[in-house]
Amino acid sequence: MNVEFINPFLSSLVNVLSTMANTKIIPGKPRIKKDEVARGDVSGLIGMISPQIKGSFSITFEAPLAIEVMFRMLGERPDGINSDVTDMVGEITNMVTGGAKRILADKGYDFTMATPVVVSGKDHTISHKSEGAKILMPFDSDFGKVHIEVSFDK
Amino acid sequence: MNVEFINPFLSSLVNVLSTMANTKIIPGKPRIKKDEVARGDVSGLIGMISPQIKGSFSITFEAPLAIEVMFRMLGERPDGINSDVTDMVGEITNMVTGGAKRILADKGYDFTMATPVVVSGKDHTISHKSEGAKILMPFDSDFGKVHIEVSFDK
Repeated sequence: MNVEFINPFLSSLVNVLSTMANTKIIPGKPRIKKDEVARGDVSGLIGMISPQIKGSFSITFEAPLAIEVMFRMLGERPDGINSDVTDMVGEITNMVTGGAKRILADKGYDFTMATPVVVSGKDHTISHKSEGAKILMPFDSDFGKVHIEVSFDK
Repeated sequence: MNVEFINPFLSSLVNVLSTMANTKIIPGKPRIKKDEVARGDVSGLIGMISPQIKGSFSITFEAPLAIEVMFRMLGERPDGINSDVTDMVGEITNMVTGGAKRILADKGYDFTMATPVVVSGKDHTISHKSEGAKILMPFDSDFGKVHIEVSFDK
């Protein structure tokens, strides 16, 4: 697992939140994730398969940031994580992996994505069960944090 | 989404728990899932892709059943849902979808699976974001319940 698999997701997320929700996020330093605690309240998960490699991607929002993004994208401000918010997180999961897919295709990796699944709950844990390292990328914003995780079999 | 997509997962789960953990489970009636509450404490999720259709599968164990299965498969009885249990749930996710994949291949659907992700947490919710109905299949056992959910785009 090398940096050429990390940057496409990082740049795609920055781009999606900027263009779709007019929200600026500041990337922190990517690191290897050793524990299983999700860094937030609602997570989108999706499987990714290419002929050479397969793995999984997740994106975890703190609730205040998810709600602010919801408001900026759709003009609604729900009280908490409801099914509209999980729908939005599923869409963002599709958009971020779709953007990364286009960048990775230019590098010769032709990924197909499964359909996303969205998980919520205080203190939920997420464990990617592929063979490779789990890379955790933190981002900060004025409204809270968002983290993405990617893990591929090589 | 029709019954030919449901029974392969049902029979594969019954078979995996019987052969790998000597645990008998009794299938209840499959139904359409309308809410997002996971029926348990630890869930394995995996994306499935075929040329014709894609979707996602999840399996959710109540903690006492997950721990009993762990004991029967590996001889260890952890106090709660730890990383050994999430590893086992990831393996069961692979085995159940692998068994279903073989049955579905005989019907002309050639699925590839992504790598599993395991989620835990009290009262976590799971929302499959594919286009089709979410089918919930309950199973009972002497040690607690297990539910599987499948959702495909058609």
